[in-house]
Parts: sequence; C-alpha cells; structure tokens
Amino acid sequence: MSFILDARLEQDSLHLADLPLCQLRLSHDARYPWLLLVPRLAKVSEVFDLSAEQQAQLWQEVSSVSALWQCVTAADKINIATLGNVVAQLHVHVVARFQTDAAWPAPIWGRGEAEVYPAEMQQNLIALLKQEVLKKETTAQHWTWLV
Amino acid sequence: MSFILDARLEQDSLHLADLPLCQLRLSHDARYPWLLLVPRLAKVSEVFDLSAEQQAQLWQEVSSVSALWQCVTAADKINIATLGNVVAQLHVHVVARFQTDAAWPAPIWGRGEAEVYPAEMQQNLIALLKQEVLKKETTAQHWTWLV
Repeated sequence: MSFILDARLEQDSLHLADLPLCQLRLSHDARYPWLLLVPRLAKVSEVFDLSAEQQAQLWQEVSSVSALWQCVTAADKINIATLGNVVAQLHVHVVARFQTDAAWPAPIWGRGEAEVYPAEMQQNLIALLKQEVLKKETTAQHWTWLV
Repeated sequence: MSFILDARLEQDSLHLADLPLCQLRLSHDARYPWLLLVPRLAKVSEVFDLSAEQQAQLWQEVSSVSALWQCVTAADKINIATLGNVVAQLHVHVVARFQTDAAWPAPIWGRGEAEVYPAEMQQNLIALLKQEVLKKETTAQHWTWLV
C-alpha cells in the first residue's frame, strides 16, 4: 500500500518540501504562519502506529521544523499538535503564534474562516524558510524542495 | 536553577508519576481523560530549547504515554499538543478523545468549564494506567509512581 495524501490536507496546504519521512506543507490560511508535516506512510493515524525509528524521525523533523519556523517568523510561541479528529491521516501542525493573532491565546483550529495569502507574502515566507534551512547544512542536504 | 512546576499546572492536575524526564500528571477536568507531561527542567518553554537528547527522551515518553492511554481509554483518537500560549512552561497534552465528548471534533482547550471527577472514576483511571504500565516491564522500571 502506498502513501496517498488526504484530499483535505492537499486542498488546504501547499507542498513545500520532502523531508526524510514527511511531506512539509504550508497552510493556505494567511491568518497564521502554519506548517504541516505529513509522514509519507500509508494508513497511519496515531503516532504510536509508527515504528520506534519512524517515531524518532517524525519528532526529529517536527523539532527541527519548529526551530526553523521560530527563526523565520519570530513568533511569540510555536504551537505543535497532532489532533486528527477531522482528518484521520497522521499529520502534525507547527504553527507560529503571536499575541496579536486572531485566536490568541486560544488554539487556532476550528475558529472563523481561513484567509487567502497575498501571493508575495506566501512567497516571502517560503524564501525565508529556504534561507534558514540553508544555514543548517546537515538539515539542507536531507530536504528536497518542491517550490 | 532547579525545576519549579507552574502554579496553574499544579492546581489543574494531579502528579501521577515521574518518568525519566517528565512529571506525568492527570488533569482534574473530568470531561476528557487528559494527561500532561512536564519536563523537569528549569525555564524551558519551547521543545527546541531542549538538547537533542532531551527532545528525543521527551517524544519517546509522549509516544509511550499516548499508546498506554489509548489502551486505558479505548479512545477514538489521541490528541497530542504542546501549545503554551497561556502557561509558558513546556508541557505536552495527551488527551483521549471520543466522538461523543463535549468538544468533538474541536480541540478541548479554552472551551466551557472544567468538571470535577467523581473520586472513584479518577482512581479507576489511575489503576487502569498502572495495569497497562505493568504489562510493559521495560517501561515500568523507569516509572516512579506518586499515587
């Protein structure tokens, strides 16, 4: 069985890069700088469905992306979560939060309507992320960019 | 500098056990079977503030507790999150979610008022968790129970 991305995740986010285990995706919702990591594995829904090695790789990628995202966004707080109550396919949210954002201090999920990015703003975020990744050579060599 | 538990985390949850890195705590809110893992480290707020070894240990404990909690609760979904928008001290939520619970499918945070456990129900949950841990000898030997 091969990995098939959930249709809602595909619709709601842009495929930025492939990391060793996960697809890295950027949410189309401009209200929050919001990344998603989706392990390229078939039929997994819970973290503990993964092997110990896969779990370690997943969390390593989540931690690494979280630190990079903090550098890119200068967020007040990074929120990390895997919920999956709506979309069962295992995916991890990494969200840059600001005391001035629309939902602060509440979680972002299930509130209000998504807003569309001005194209240059999304491109800027991606360019900044690429710059941050390039500063970390050992990280960069394991990432394959799709954008 | 030594570890001091945030006052709100202390008030809102019961100290169940010490794992190698984290305090394991049970939320007093009876609406959801809800665990918290709090690394016993001073002044950390973000996962990437930890060393690589500490991060690996944290996520290993989170994954292990999540799998145990699934066995105890037979949840429809385990939600894992580290938010920290209200309480800055690093803590990870592991919440057993049910399609019949008060917030489903939304996240649980910041909704409604906490409900108090009937004493025997909280004790039952703890007893079931102890049973599950005992089934995993290598896990059990690294846990120190406080209850």
